[in-house]
Amino acid sequence: MKNTATRYTGNKTFDVIDAASPSPGKGEVRIKVAYCGVCGTDVHIFHGMMDQRVSMPLTIGHEMSGVVDAVGPEVDGFKVGEKVVVRPLDDRGAKPSDKGFNHVAAALKFIGIDSPGAMQQYWNVPAFTLHKLPADTDMQLAALVEPLAVACHDVRLSGIKPGEYAVVLGGGPIGMLVAMRAKHAGAKVLISETNATRCQLAKELGFEVVNPINEDLVDYVSKATDGGLADVVFEVAGVQPTIDVMTEVAGIRGRIVLVAIHGQPRPVNLFKFFWKELQLIGARVYEPEDYDDAIQLVADKSLPLNALITSVAPLTSIQSVFEQIDQNPDGMKVLLDCQA
Amino acid sequence: MKNTATRYTGNKTFDVIDAASPSPGKGEVRIKVAYCGVCGTDVHIFHGMMDQRVSMPLTIGHEMSGVVDAVGPEVDGFKVGEKVVVRPLDDRGAKPSDKGFNHVAAALKFIGIDSPGAMQQYWNVPAFTLHKLPADTDMQLAALVEPLAVACHDVRLSGIKPGEYAVVLGGGPIGMLVAMRAKHAGAKVLISETNATRCQLAKELGFEVVNPINEDLVDYVSKATDGGLADVVFEVAGVQPTIDVMTEVAGIRGRIVLVAIHGQPRPVNLFKFFWKELQLIGARVYEPEDYDDAIQLVADKSLPLNALITSVAPLTSIQSVFEQIDQNPDGMKVLLDCQA
Repeated sequence: MKNTATRYTGNKTFDVIDAASPSPGKGEVRIKVAYCGVCGTDVHIFHGMMDQRVSMPLTIGHEMSGVVDAVGPEVDGFKVGEKVVVRPLDDRGAKPSDKGFNHVAAALKFIGIDSPGAMQQYWNVPAFTLHKLPADTDMQLAALVEPLAVACHDVRLSGIKPGEYAVVLGGGPIGMLVAMRAKHAGAKVLISETNATRCQLAKELGFEVVNPINEDLVDYVSKATDGGLADVVFEVAGVQPTIDVMTEVAGIRGRIVLVAIHGQPRPVNLFKFFWKELQLIGARVYEPEDYDDAIQLVADKSLPLNALITSVAPLTSIQSVFEQIDQNPDGMKVLLDCQA
Repeated sequence: MKNTATRYTGNKTFDVIDAASPSPGKGEVRIKVAYCGVCGTDVHIFHGMMDQRVSMPLTIGHEMSGVVDAVGPEVDGFKVGEKVVVRPLDDRGAKPSDKGFNHVAAALKFIGIDSPGAMQQYWNVPAFTLHKLPADTDMQLAALVEPLAVACHDVRLSGIKPGEYAVVLGGGPIGMLVAMRAKHAGAKVLISETNATRCQLAKELGFEVVNPINEDLVDYVSKATDGGLADVVFEVAGVQPTIDVMTEVAGIRGRIVLVAIHGQPRPVNLFKFFWKELQLIGARVYEPEDYDDAIQLVADKSLPLNALITSVAPLTSIQSVFEQIDQNPDGMKVLLDCQA
């Protein structure tokens, strides 16, 4: 059976091959992939930043939607033709020392980074990674379930309540999804973003927007909240200026959710944590309930997710897709169409 | 009425005067102070570190026990002779922007720093700051209610549960009180401390102790917890090495309570917050329920608090007391006896 598969081969290069498509093994399901989004992590891999972790050549990709194509031995509960998404966390190495938080287990393997991913036509995955979709789910939007589940996790860990004021630092795809999820939870949401095109999009989506290059974010939020400042801050930008501002824009007992990855220690104003009794909440990937939440939001068409899809391109154009992403800082989410 | 009062006059100097002791004003109570402990903040004031905030000459001191000596107009519920402690937070300037967390209100005034304190014989305070003590309470131990309430607040905010493993970074008076309160809550408690005398005291009090100069704290905790590391970390030392180790010694979803004051931004390993989903919880002073908790613990003799009292000295010896504290890094809590 023909399986058009892409592979990262190092040095900013993908190839496209006719790979074998083996039958699903014990406990596995074969997925016919519909769409696969390009994640920031995929771009990092393309840039060679993760070459020490990635076994080349490797098919990457994990933000996908698809249909069950074949069911392997000892798999119950799935039928050919069902729409699914994969929660790409292989937590089979979890130990008691992970305290039940298997989604961040020390030995966690991330499918699509540590093992083959979805940027191919057919993909065998462990059945325990699957979540079913309602039959009428839009499969392009379903490819956003994975990043939306990240946002659902972040917002859930923030403990946000209706009427609270949230500031999202960074209006990229995850920042926008966090903002949408927080707004859906009843919060007032402001997005702080330096890219003018992304600012415009955030405004069109109905958010308050501040470009901190042009105006003082803390002043703006202080005025908007009668001095109370933000109840919740989401740090989604990953740069020193957002680390500097997060402790300023948060009000008394403010919760700061750390979503971004900081590869080096950052100077943090710990005095403000003491003085205002701030909380910093680290958040990584998602738990099963966050997937359930994200699937429901996609199925209900509760969020304007379509606005985040910048373009859809054929799987076989993967090389030019990644090259164009590098040249378009305005872009949001690009989907690869993996269907024959 | 004679009132022997001490005053910080700047330049590492206290004087002792016969001050007037006015009758308590509207809403006030006059306390006959029994004992007043010396806090690290008092030592900072002595060192001139807070001269910009302190209006000299000023009677300082806030870790006290005493007896109601006179009741001013419009005060209900207090009688002469009742034993009391003062919760030295004047939150009359609190605003809605403080969100109900008046103990850390932006306009909070701390009695004994921003207004006259307890290092005198007689002290007028607003009645709303008082908490009653049971009649048979030991008044020396009652002078520890204020710092113990800090520890009660820290442990409460940690959400610690019986059987959890807690690491206290820093074995000074507050660190020891935090350790005692956490142990009383059912946690397994390890104290990390570099001073050999304090290490010895912590061992005598029944705690696991690591001196990180002599052995690797993270290795020790990892072995003690089968790799699970600490569920809760209390950062009570206020130095860069404890900031560096706090993110290493905390296990998955570990809560790090930031008790210490860091006067400058500190490099923090934010990647670990993301990777292990750590939480940082800023904690400052106390809320009324923490005072109730501390009073109960003192009244019940639940904790070995006596071990923390290094010495008791007459109020009038305040100058030599502060000078000796500077020369004795092994010491814990010194009390001034303010009774005639």
